[in-house]
Amino acid sequence: MTMVHAQILCILGACAMIEFVEKTIDRSALLWNDITRIRAEAPLVHNITNFVVMNTTANALLALGASPVMAHAAEEVGEMAALARALVVNIGTLSAAWVESMRLAMRAAAANGRPIVFDPVGAGATRFRTETCRRLLAEVPPSIVRGNASEILALAGASGATKGVDSTETSDAAVDAARTLATRYGCVVTVSGAADLIVSSDRTVRVANGHPMMPRVTGLGCTATALTGAFAAVNPSLLDAAAHAMAVMGIAGEMAAAQSPGPGTFQVRFLDALYGLQESDIRSRLKLEAA
Amino acid sequence: MTMVHAQILCILGACAMIEFVEKTIDRSALLWNDITRIRAEAPLVHNITNFVVMNTTANALLALGASPVMAHAAEEVGEMAALARALVVNIGTLSAAWVESMRLAMRAAAANGRPIVFDPVGAGATRFRTETCRRLLAEVPPSIVRGNASEILALAGASGATKGVDSTETSDAAVDAARTLATRYGCVVTVSGAADLIVSSDRTVRVANGHPMMPRVTGLGCTATALTGAFAAVNPSLLDAAAHAMAVMGIAGEMAAAQSPGPGTFQVRFLDALYGLQESDIRSRLKLEAA
Amino acid sequence: MTMVHAQILCILGACAMIEFVEKTIDRSALLWNDITRIRAEAPLVHNITNFVVMNTTANALLALGASPVMAHAAEEVGEMAALARALVVNIGTLSAAWVESMRLAMRAAAANGRPIVFDPVGAGATRFRTETCRRLLAEVPPSIVRGNASEILALAGASGATKGVDSTETSDAAVDAARTLATRYGCVVTVSGAADLIVSSDRTVRVANGHPMMPRVTGLGCTATALTGAFAAVNPSLLDAAAHAMAVMGIAGEMAAAQSPGPGTFQVRFLDALYGLQESDIRSRLKLEAA
Repeated sequence: MTMVHAQILCILGACAMIEFVEKTIDRSALLWNDITRIRAEAPLVHNITNFVVMNTTANALLALGASPVMAHAAEEVGEMAALARALVVNIGTLSAAWVESMRLAMRAAAANGRPIVFDPVGAGATRFRTETCRRLLAEVPPSIVRGNASEILALAGASGATKGVDSTETSDAAVDAARTLATRYGCVVTVSGAADLIVSSDRTVRVANGHPMMPRVTGLGCTATALTGAFAAVNPSLLDAAAHAMAVMGIAGEMAAAQSPGPGTFQVRFLDALYGLQESDIRSRLKLEAA
Repeated sequence: MTMVHAQILCILGACAMIEFVEKTIDRSALLWNDITRIRAEAPLVHNITNFVVMNTTANALLALGASPVMAHAAEEVGEMAALARALVVNIGTLSAAWVESMRLAMRAAAANGRPIVFDPVGAGATRFRTETCRRLLAEVPPSIVRGNASEILALAGASGATKGVDSTETSDAAVDAARTLATRYGCVVTVSGAADLIVSSDRTVRVANGHPMMPRVTGLGCTATALTGAFAAVNPSLLDAAAHAMAVMGIAGEMAAAQSPGPGTFQVRFLDALYGLQESDIRSRLKLEAA
Repeated sequence: MTMVHAQILCILGACAMIEFVEKTIDRSALLWNDITRIRAEAPLVHNITNFVVMNTTANALLALGASPVMAHAAEEVGEMAALARALVVNIGTLSAAWVESMRLAMRAAAANGRPIVFDPVGAGATRFRTETCRRLLAEVPPSIVRGNASEILALAGASGATKGVDSTETSDAAVDAARTLATRYGCVVTVSGAADLIVSSDRTVRVANGHPMMPRVTGLGCTATALTGAFAAVNPSLLDAAAHAMAVMGIAGEMAAAQSPGPGTFQVRFLDALYGLQESDIRSRLKLEAA
């Protein structure tokens, strides 16, 4: 047996081991543990987000059990980011003054060891969005980036066309771009879509929860980003935090859609589902696996 | 028969012909055709609108089948307006910086041949609002203006008193003002109210759908403006696009109100109704006629 | 009997008289009278408030029967505040430019004799918030301040820790701070919480309506402030206006919670309850007493 063969066997063995561990981990219990902690600790999550979703993401964080605060003034974002247990930055309705506040908040969060979750809404649609994202992320590497496939492709430098703020690509098409970003920034990247992929430099997790009605409600992607902040506040594993947030979004979405004739009712039931989520809902619905 | 008599007969004949055509057009089919196109094409509608309604108008556009994007930074509005198939400008919570972005976006939309729908929220209530509207519209003539009677009267230079952002006048009181604006800017003017009047330089259409609960929900006028953008994206007849938007607002409003004890439930059912709208709903409810 | 004894007896007599009057006043009738006036007169309430709650507070004002307007541009706030019958200022998502507009609006409201209701969201959480509140209130004394216990403690100069925008203290802990502020500014102070205390320089009223689900919905504190503006527009007694607003919030909250599995449904039912409120709801539920 040559050295190379031994190495290959060793790698295969390690892969088998990882697979075995993945299969025996009780994923539902891990996720439920995060929810229990969020409800018990009500972690303060500082959001600098867009005007469209401020109300809905604040309500989703409250329904989950976290404590949201929205603050964007340059005079206070450093102080607020240091007080909070996670920072969520979302460029959905960006402007120059807000970008400067995002930069200040991200620096303060990094200096205080707080996780930073970044949502590159509409990256690729305009130069201003793409360049703002690249500049911010280069200066302060984020903990987790969550975007749709088009946005992730655009951030990685691929030519994925973004139509406004909606993706024109599937999640799988963006997995290489996600890995590029994960390696570049040393972060976790969530590519959301019909299935969600959560990608680190060496692992990929797939979450297959969710419902087709969800893209017909504005800002559910932004809500996923906000909830990722709450999970990152209580779970030091960024990959798990990101995956758990997407799973909870999808599960609450399935529960809401089952009772909804349309997107109006869906929004109401979605908050009710987040609020009332029980361990049995997680156990019976969770579709999360190593990919 | 003198020349004058011949001319009069000719005019009478033309009027009779227009009336005949109006009566034989299948209005429901035309409106349903627009809805089908919006659902199939999901036209991108660029909104520069007010903070109060950003979430609700985005959700209404999504429920109808269009694809909304909100962007207001001077650095990107030109690019975004060129990408989109319609531009919606709403001055509800205006400020100097946003007005400049509105101007840039309107110029880009005009340069790219995109329809511009303009909502003069609160024109007449303060000098800043009235003058901003007049300046913007003089520089870039809009395709469609939608306002309540007080706002349309104020824009036309009449002394209609606006109480905050709510009208103190009926739609019929503003029909001459609407025609003045339609002629001045070469646009279509929608005067919304208990009945809606859609006015061009030479025609008037009346839509009598709707429900008294609608003024008790904030931003339904702004939603009408946003949906007008979606219809203008798929229908080159601005008069028809404007009338169809008001009819769909009114019909979805009737359907929602029938199930609602109050304005909270109404908002939920309204989005559900937009999402689930069927041709039979249009056929059984449409109240649209030449006026 | 010495002079001092006579004075004490006189004070005791006055106290007994006030208590007697309190007990015989038909509180429900007074509150219902305010609601009837709001519905009949639809007072214009000018709000300079935060991005998170603009939609929900506008809808709550409309559901109650008032007419909300949101306007923040320096160019128009003076004019708008003079048009309106009450001004509501809320610093939830403050920035330097907005603070300047708040100052201008407050001066215009004061100059025109309009009541000013002030909400110090997050005072104590950052220096910018605490100092902005103190500067604004010192320059233009408000009519009514409504905050949670932490915010009221922070404004009064106590060391109450604010966690983001949520209180860490009970209302009772802030009663001395509330009285300090009431005396300093010659205003009424509402400390909201599980029970609400409404404090003037010499009186305290306690409102015990409400439901534990209410803090799980974003912006209900801000909504209480907005409704206080509507009541202050029709009732010259600031103490009564403030107390009536908190009672209506609590009663509508109880009615909504009774039908709601979670905070999504709650928001819908809350607006329906405000809209449909009847005198019998007030009579059967009101828990308002001198404290």
